Amino acid sequence: MKKDPKSGKIRKRPRQVWEKIPGGITAPRGYLASGVAAGIKKKGLDVAVLFSPVPASGAAVFTVNRIQAAPVLLSRKHLRASGGRVRAVLLNSGCANACTGTSGVRDALLSAECLASHLEIDPAQVVVASTGVIGAALPMRKLLKGISAAASALNSKGGSQAARAIMTTDTKEKTCSVEGRISGKPVRIGGMAKGSGMIHPQMATMLSVITTDVQVPPAQLSKILGRVVEKTFNCLTVDGDTSTNDMVALLANGASGVRLDSRSAYYFESGLEEVCRELAKSIARDGEGATKFVEILVQGAEKYEDARCVAKAIAHSSLVKTALYGEELNWGRILCAVGYSGVAFDPQEISLSLCGIPLFRDGAPVSAAQARAEKAIKRHDLLIEVDLAAGRSAATVWTCDLSHEYVNINASYMT
Amino acid sequence: MKKDPKSGKIRKRPRQVWEKIPGGITAPRGYLASGVAAGIKKKGLDVAVLFSPVPASGAAVFTVNRIQAAPVLLSRKHLRASGGRVRAVLLNSGCANACTGTSGVRDALLSAECLASHLEIDPAQVVVASTGVIGAALPMRKLLKGISAAASALNSKGGSQAARAIMTTDTKEKTCSVEGRISGKPVRIGGMAKGSGMIHPQMATMLSVITTDVQVPPAQLSKILGRVVEKTFNCLTVDGDTSTNDMVALLANGASGVRLDSRSAYYFESGLEEVCRELAKSIARDGEGATKFVEILVQGAEKYEDARCVAKAIAHSSLVKTALYGEELNWGRILCAVGYSGVAFDPQEISLSLCGIPLFRDGAPVSAAQARAEKAIKRHDLLIEVDLAAGRSAATVWTCDLSHEYVNINASYMT
Repeated sequence: MKKDPKSGKIRKRPRQVWEKIPGGITAPRGYLASGVAAGIKKKGLDVAVLFSPVPASGAAVFTVNRIQAAPVLLSRKHLRASGGRVRAVLLNSGCANACTGTSGVRDALLSAECLASHLEIDPAQVVVASTGVIGAALPMRKLLKGISAAASALNSKGGSQAARAIMTTDTKEKTCSVEGRISGKPVRIGGMAKGSGMIHPQMATMLSVITTDVQVPPAQLSKILGRVVEKTFNCLTVDGDTSTNDMVALLANGASGVRLDSRSAYYFESGLEEVCRELAKSIARDGEGATKFVEILVQGAEKYEDARCVAKAIAHSSLVKTALYGEELNWGRILCAVGYSGVAFDPQEISLSLCGIPLFRDGAPVSAAQARAEKAIKRHDLLIEVDLAAGRSAATVWTCDLSHEYVNINASYMT
Repeated sequence: MKKDPKSGKIRKRPRQVWEKIPGGITAPRGYLASGVAAGIKKKGLDVAVLFSPVPASGAAVFTVNRIQAAPVLLSRKHLRASGGRVRAVLLNSGCANACTGTSGVRDALLSAECLASHLEIDPAQVVVASTGVIGAALPMRKLLKGISAAASALNSKGGSQAARAIMTTDTKEKTCSVEGRISGKPVRIGGMAKGSGMIHPQMATMLSVITTDVQVPPAQLSKILGRVVEKTFNCLTVDGDTSTNDMVALLANGASGVRLDSRSAYYFESGLEEVCRELAKSIARDGEGATKFVEILVQGAEKYEDARCVAKAIAHSSLVKTALYGEELNWGRILCAVGYSGVAFDPQEISLSLCGIPLFRDGAPVSAAQARAEKAIKRHDLLIEVDLAAGRSAATVWTCDLSHEYVNINASYMT
């Protein structure tokens, strides 16, 4: 920090920022993408391809569900076999290819091979991902046709089309891209995601692909991605159901000519975190049937894990979520969830507030603020804050409410 | 076992059974009960009293929620102070008296003292329980009037009235009573419960009171109750929310003249288990908005805890529950929940069936049974069976579906 010679005020060093730019996964240089309708879903785009003509470093995190879909099993294998070199990602919506036995794994491999032959690359450099109904077999004839069409349609502005092709019950396409500078050179990060239901990522969320034109070796890329996912996608829940198909894949093709050093790695990580946080929040905002976006901040925890555990207990409570949907100030349900989270605290010491308005402190309700809080609960974006008064750690979790529409969607998902 | 001299067939020793009888908590001899309307709820009965003119052995299990309602704190204290001697239980619906600070504890004590003075007993021999909205103060003037009326209305056939007075969003009163024989003498066990929402008992469920006329010392009674609750109420979930007010209280007044010995204790426990299981199942059957009763049986687990953990993961899944509500055979959601339960198993070895119809085995779907299963899912009572093929332990959990009506009820609980 320097003093300004004129005003005498302390001048902060301008913080390097990441600027929002359009483009999604094709915002960074050197990537092509496309999305086509192959008839796997009843309507709309359902096959997406991302292609990096030069081999990119690739890293991915996958679901911790013990039942892992065929594309998850195959993608893990391919990343190992290629030593973290990836040139293409193939994604389809409308069918999860999970719980489909050995024929499901064969189908996933066949589709990777089909794309590889169109692009004239090694099949082991293809990552595959699927989302949709669990237990159904991929309609292979439709998919192979779709792969061929998507390979032909690849273009440098295909990010938005690809993002639309991975949607299931999502109502909005989810992309985010940013531009920053390293050593004076522009570098970019772009991402897309799909969410909606069965969203309680534990390692990753239901399909997100992120690209960058920075040059990063696979091992470093993998470490950075793991840290960022932990702070972003893993702080998200819609319904507490951890999917069989969760995957976040990150490709770095080096097309910016910028190679990360120890100082710029920190900066790059902040940009990646920004993209992932934005995508995670947009998934909560567009959760199945959501009418509210809810941010839950738990502070004063002994450790980070405690804070997140409490925040997730609140975020998973059907009673809290239906009360928010009904715009009822039934804050006792929030404290009840804190109480059964399993985390230790003193009920006399904790405090609770909604959108900054205190509801409970010193072991008793704050009745004076009731009227203001009843007004605040009608907002679309809600902030629930809990202070456990047990330490200095904090965690944020994003979620949505539980509405009639969630029941509508999930009581007739297959029809 | 003996051979029948005539038929030559093996004759099993006639198993001692418990016969269903009417009466609820006043089915056993020597108990009086009543339920009155004190205006705490907008309509209906809302104050219940159970009275044993002679001091009974008393045992209770309480919620493990770290935030415990005032009546839970007071009842614990009273049971300690009285050495497990209980003469009365006071219950109210319409207000949980939870998160109400020191004034809430004072109110609970005051209401116990009020009842004790009417009945001319020691206040420490009164157990109190409340259910309803969290965070609101007890309307003491109404409650004290109600206590007086309930004390005057006590009668030996009041079990049904008392059961109605503890209902909140329950649509049916929940009672169960049985008669058996020990040393030739008739003995009885009677119980009542309320359930509906915020039901995920961890030690006990939202208010259940059980009586018996068997003579059992408090320490033995407490051990028996703990074991039985673990196998019955703790195998129940409606929405995964563990309440701040959960309580099961058991009174034994010895009015049958039968004292338990080591052999009859086992028989008594089986009768108590029958009553508690019946009450737990009736809570699942009448869960908020329930249109289906769902029994989940997990077998082949390495240990009991694993089996119950898997069963609860299925029972807690909003996706499974909405699919059952929509009568959709989306069985992939069930396997998905098994997969994220945290329990180890081999995905190639597990099997899944619905109402006895196989859906998944040997790592792949059983497509031949699809049509039959699609018919079975339309039944009101559903049985989901999972075999983990990892051991010999099993557990059963009872739950219900997640319907539009659940959202209706909980989006406007306070209005």
